Order: sequence, then structure tokens, then C-alpha cells
Amino acid sequence: MNKLEQLYEGKAKKVFATEDPNLVIVDYKDDATAGDGAKKGTIRGKGVVNNKLSNNLMKMLAEQGVPTHFVEELSDRETLVKKVQIVPLEVIVRNVAAGSFSKRYGVAEGTVFKAPTLEFSYKNDDLHDPLINHYHALALELATQEEIDTISAYAFKVNEILSKYLLQFNIRLIDFKLEFGRLADGTIVLADEISPDTCRFWDATTGAHLDKDLFRRDLGGEEEAYQEVMKRLLG
Amino acid sequence: MNKLEQLYEGKAKKVFATEDPNLVIVDYKDDATAGDGAKKGTIRGKGVVNNKLSNNLMKMLAEQGVPTHFVEELSDRETLVKKVQIVPLEVIVRNVAAGSFSKRYGVAEGTVFKAPTLEFSYKNDDLHDPLINHYHALALELATQEEIDTISAYAFKVNEILSKYLLQFNIRLIDFKLEFGRLADGTIVLADEISPDTCRFWDATTGAHLDKDLFRRDLGGEEEAYQEVMKRLLG
Repeated sequence: MNKLEQLYEGKAKKVFATEDPNLVIVDYKDDATAGDGAKKGTIRGKGVVNNKLSNNLMKMLAEQGVPTHFVEELSDRETLVKKVQIVPLEVIVRNVAAGSFSKRYGVAEGTVFKAPTLEFSYKNDDLHDPLINHYHALALELATQEEIDTISAYAFKVNEILSKYLLQFNIRLIDFKLEFGRLADGTIVLADEISPDTCRFWDATTGAHLDKDLFRRDLGGEEEAYQEVMKRLLG
Repeated sequence: MNKLEQLYEGKAKKVFATEDPNLVIVDYKDDATAGDGAKKGTIRGKGVVNNKLSNNLMKMLAEQGVPTHFVEELSDRETLVKKVQIVPLEVIVRNVAAGSFSKRYGVAEGTVFKAPTLEFSYKNDDLHDPLINHYHALALELATQEEIDTISAYAFKVNEILSKYLLQFNIRLIDFKLEFGRLADGTIVLADEISPDTCRFWDATTGAHLDKDLFRRDLGGEEEAYQEVMKRLLG
């Protein structure tokens, strides 16, 4: 499978066409942004970590019944995935208050919820990805009710599987963002990536950040943290 | 029933205790605020209009199966209501895009939704009443799932009844905000007020604002608009 023309360049990835119209190649970059693009930088080696971690986690999720876009890892930074039309809803699942949730609702970081929460953001750079609920998503025709139900069920299932899995490596899954896509036939599959860019990982013993918050908050050590997560999960 | 000590003073109303611990007296003021308190002013006669209109609409809603806090109108500005513990969720129902919705999601004012939408704001001045979804409301223990279901069902019912009712007076109900309260036994009832302060009313022919947007947006004519709504509805 060869890389043909570049279809898209995002903050952390490039996407290329292939000879197969139903398959694309994702190429992970080391570029990092935060604060709605206000902060830009590089986390050396991030592209490799995110590519390998995401593939590993998606394979595991697929085995447990969550369909994903993953097809085949091609190199350290490149992966063949099914071409999807991204549903313009970022899906955030939270087990513990942190980040924008803590700020918005005045709840201390680290507060554990009785049950996980789910929220959608409208994926729209011009509008700065505003929080949106399912009534609004339907009104704006971003997804159908059936798609929203499917996506919500998958998101909670991913949370259950991932939380349990990561704890074996002494990592707490605090919260994470997923994106879903539609295949040509309309089937909903998990897309985008699952990585320290898109999840909050805290060391289960020390509470140390093992994710992009180190970069976002200028705490330092992000390069080492990404490597640490890869070492724990992939050996 | 006598006014005893003042229990609360809000932006548009004062609330007084009575001899009956289960009843309070609401006293409507002419004070108006907008933009999260940034703009302050007076709309002469507003207190009288809102008191009479709200009572009239709540009586009609109660007859059609939506329980409310309304007991008895005592004077032009004063009403006896059941004492409630307010559920700290503002409930907003929208038929047409306007105001914060249009701004947040980049949708032109006046865009009609295929189906009404519902949203909650967390009633919290310090946090500026942020948008909140039902998962978050549960996580913050602002209401139970049963209460949220009850409140949502009532809110949509209010929308159906009010939209139809107002159209008789050539008024389109664009959107509105409701608040609900718990009686001592936990029963959920509609509380607060239904008025041009809390609803967007557009003249069904001309599209003219007949509500607080005239004040919010410095368009002028708010005093006359409030009187016009009262005249149309109460003759």
C-alpha cells in the first residue's frame, strides 16, 4: 500500500490516500498544541509513541467488541486505517474531575465521580469546539439519534475496558477524548487515536501526570512521560 | 397572609417568609440586569407585568397538568407561592436559534429547529451559570436521574402548551428558561417565573422582539414591549 496525495494535515497527524479508496494512511507527527492552538511545540518521539500505543489499544478494543478504523501498522509512525467520515463530535468520558471540567464547574481536580460522565464537544475550530448536548447535536444534524446512542455506548465500553487494562500497568484513566467515524456503509467505528495526547493518565501510586498535561501546563518531562507509558504498556 | 422577614433578594424579585412555613411571598421588582450582571437598569412597570403574566401562565399550565408553585396573586407585584428548594439547573427550551445558542454554535438567529431542544445551565453565579449536561448534573449531585427526567418532560410539555397558547396572541415562542423546585415532600413543581425576562417572544407577523432582548441589546422600547405582551395576553 503506497502513500498517495495528502488528504489532510491536522495538529498531530497527516492523512494520505492509498490505491484503495476505502483505506488511508495516518502519519503521526511530534507536533503538539495546547490551549486551543495558543501554545505550539514539539514532544520528541510523541508520534512514534502515539502510533504504537493507539494501535495496540485499538486492537485490544476490537477484540472486545468495539469496532475501530485500525487495519495495520506500517511503520513506527504510519498506520493503515479504514477511511471514515468523522462525526463532528468529540466524545469525552470522565472518571475523575480534571482540566476543563474542574474549571467549568468549580470541582477540585481528583474528585472521583460515582459514575463516569460523558460529554460531546462540537468539533469546529472556528467555534473553539464548544460543549454541546445531544438535543443540540440533533438540531444541528451533526449525527442521528441512533448514531449518538451507538457512540455513547461504545464510549462507556471503551472506558470500562481501558480503565481495567491500564490499571495493570499502574495507570489510572482519569478522562479521555474519542472520535468516531462513519464507514462508507454508515457503520460507526472508533477512529482518531487513543494516546497521552487524548487521555489523562495518572500514575496510580504517585498521581504523577503521564500525559499531555505536562506540556499544556508547562510542567516539563513530557518526552519522558510518553516513553514511560509506552514502556509500561508495550514493554 | 403577612410578609415576614426577607428570605432572599434576587436580580428581579424579593422573597419573604409568611406565617406558614410552606408558603412564601414573591415581590417583583422593576430592576433588570443583563450580560451576567454587567448591565444594570430598570424597566418601568416590569414587576407588575411579570407578576401578572407569570401567574396567568402558571395557572393555565397547572390546569393542563404541569404542577407549579403558584398559590394566589396578592397584589400587582406580590404573589403567594409554595416554598420550594430550587433545583440548581436552569432549563432552557429552544424552538428557534437565538442568543447564546446562535453565538455558541454559529447558527443564524431565526433558524427553526426540526424538534425543540433542551439544555441545562448550572445555576451558579460564581461560575457564570455554565452549560451542563445530565451526566455532569448527576456527577455533581445537582438532581437525581428521576428528577432530571421529570423536569425534562415538564419542560417540553410547557413548550407545547405555551407555544400554542401564545400564537393565539400572534406571539412566537422562540425559547425560554424555566426553574423547578422541590416541595418539602420532594415533589417537583415549576417555580420562578415565565415572563418577557425569561422568554424570547417575537411578534409572529413582524418578528419584533417583545422581550428583554430589547434591554439586553440596547434596542430600546422595552417598557412598551412588556406592556404590549400584557395587553395581548390579559386584555
